[in-house]
Amino acid sequence: MTGSIPSYYSQEVHGPFQTFELGNFVLESGARLRNAQLAYATFGELSPARDNAILFPSWYSGSNKILELAYLGSGRALDPARYFIILVNQLGNGLSSSPSNTPSPFNAARFPTVSVGDDVRAQHRLLTEKFGIEQLQLVLGGSMGAQITYEWAVSQPQFVRRAAPIAGTARATPHNRLLVETFIEAITSDPAWDGGWYEASASVHRGLRRHARLFAASGFTPALFNHAGWAGLGFTTTDDFLIGFVENHFLAQDPNNLIALARKWQSADVSRHANGDLAAALARIQARTAVIAIEEDGFFPFDDIVAEQTLIARSELHRISSRWGHLALFGTDAGYNASIDRILLDLLAQS
Amino acid sequence: MTGSIPSYYSQEVHGPFQTFELGNFVLESGARLRNAQLAYATFGELSPARDNAILFPSWYSGSNKILELAYLGSGRALDPARYFIILVNQLGNGLSSSPSNTPSPFNAARFPTVSVGDDVRAQHRLLTEKFGIEQLQLVLGGSMGAQITYEWAVSQPQFVRRAAPIAGTARATPHNRLLVETFIEAITSDPAWDGGWYEASASVHRGLRRHARLFAASGFTPALFNHAGWAGLGFTTTDDFLIGFVENHFLAQDPNNLIALARKWQSADVSRHANGDLAAALARIQARTAVIAIEEDGFFPFDDIVAEQTLIARSELHRISSRWGHLALFGTDAGYNASIDRILLDLLAQS
Repeated sequence: MTGSIPSYYSQEVHGPFQTFELGNFVLESGARLRNAQLAYATFGELSPARDNAILFPSWYSGSNKILELAYLGSGRALDPARYFIILVNQLGNGLSSSPSNTPSPFNAARFPTVSVGDDVRAQHRLLTEKFGIEQLQLVLGGSMGAQITYEWAVSQPQFVRRAAPIAGTARATPHNRLLVETFIEAITSDPAWDGGWYEASASVHRGLRRHARLFAASGFTPALFNHAGWAGLGFTTTDDFLIGFVENHFLAQDPNNLIALARKWQSADVSRHANGDLAAALARIQARTAVIAIEEDGFFPFDDIVAEQTLIARSELHRISSRWGHLALFGTDAGYNASIDRILLDLLAQS
Repeated sequence: MTGSIPSYYSQEVHGPFQTFELGNFVLESGARLRNAQLAYATFGELSPARDNAILFPSWYSGSNKILELAYLGSGRALDPARYFIILVNQLGNGLSSSPSNTPSPFNAARFPTVSVGDDVRAQHRLLTEKFGIEQLQLVLGGSMGAQITYEWAVSQPQFVRRAAPIAGTARATPHNRLLVETFIEAITSDPAWDGGWYEASASVHRGLRRHARLFAASGFTPALFNHAGWAGLGFTTTDDFLIGFVENHFLAQDPNNLIALARKWQSADVSRHANGDLAAALARIQARTAVIAIEEDGFFPFDDIVAEQTLIARSELHRISSRWGHLALFGTDAGYNASIDRILLDLLAQS
């Protein structure tokens, strides 16, 4: 991979990670990614029978690193002593092939449209060609990672023994698409965005900061702000938290990468595997499925998640309450973390 | 009042309304509004004893006209055959003194900061000097109108016999202030905003459209979008509704007016009457108070409203559920309208 790579998307910040060469990878849109790459990190050992693998794709604006820090560990449900855990970076996230690391002329604003279907096909190649895996014990993911989890379970039903979509849906709703459109417009309305042809990511900082505040306003719950729930992280005021935690998270990232991910988010829809019939698409799922919803979620509302769960045969609904709302995914809420571990341990114990 | 008045803020669109001259009106900030005016509309007849008056201040981006259309009528709780109903426009809304109708040099970006306390003092003068009213049967209002209602009940406890704050709080919460800041930034990030010195409101249309979509994303519920709840109004797609209803509502308005109102919204806080002690401030209320919350409200969450209601002695909590969320206030939901009438009829029947 050539071109100038912002230091944020580096081994120093997100590593160690490896890359898998996809070669010329044709996308759902028909466009072709040249020298496409998937970045991933593995933990634990693949068993000789290759039957202990867990796949965990990244979410919007995240990488393998936050998944490792928030979900993996000795004695936890995702224990590398027991499982071979593959944390894979989405196309567009800055580590796998993305607007920011693809050479000209397909870089930046010319990076092609990518879909969750593209991610699943690329990840399937990584699993089969690199590791010889033919079935996963579990696919799980949060938010956009849940969209990818559903796409796996619907498009590769025999490959996925268990699935745990967390705080996400199989098909983006009209409201969800509107919400994401407001995120996109927060960035693209910055004159420095310049149609995606900015000189440096840092010059779009006003748009990134606006995006961060929009993200915070519905990603966390009102109660988190109104009861200073951020104090435990060491922040001193609402603004100290918004700037030091949320703006800081996005300021390091490439605007074109975020837009590529956001467009992918909006387009997620497993029903395209069944001519637009969502129930028929979800009926394809063979995995034992733990559908996990955060009750206060402002991005993927509880009701929307339940509406899909009732259409999945071998599924169970799990509710977690958190003042951190959707962004409890980040692992900042010990109660949420404990609930996730309990749900995943139960799921993994079932056949 | 001189200066160029956009045709939207006219008798043709919002009338008939009258104006009350406040003269030189000193604001809480210390600034002075010269030739200040309150625009208002009345319905019904003031009784000889002047004891049948109801005051209903406008909300953010609204005027007397929407209050009339959505809440008044023969056989309804607010029946002009029985009550003298005064619908009063907030300072900054484009009909009362506002950035858009104040002559230079105090116009546009130089219009001084106004507060809900200023509104109540101005409205008190209208009631006492123009009509000789010394007590109101009821003050009610929705959203920012609820903020003004609380300010009335706390700052003029003997003047307010009954109060009905709908979908609003007495003190803006940290989350609420963040949400409103995202509305403000949607407008002020438009290069055409130019620090408030745009040539014409229409040139800021991109910012106004972004503001409208943000407003819609949390003002209505996800369910309204996901189940095409807008279809009953004759719209055909999500975008048809967003453009035809929400963008259309804001495109007609003056950006400086909206910013003046939004800043007022953020600063609402009755606790300044009790040295920052919210409980002590709310304990000043003597009115019988019907606190009305919309369960799905994304602007003023149910929990925040309940937290204040429990601090008000003669209060009762009423919950209304609506797919229209906060913006059920507009009167688009027949179920909401019927609930409001029932609650207000009960309240007005009590001593």
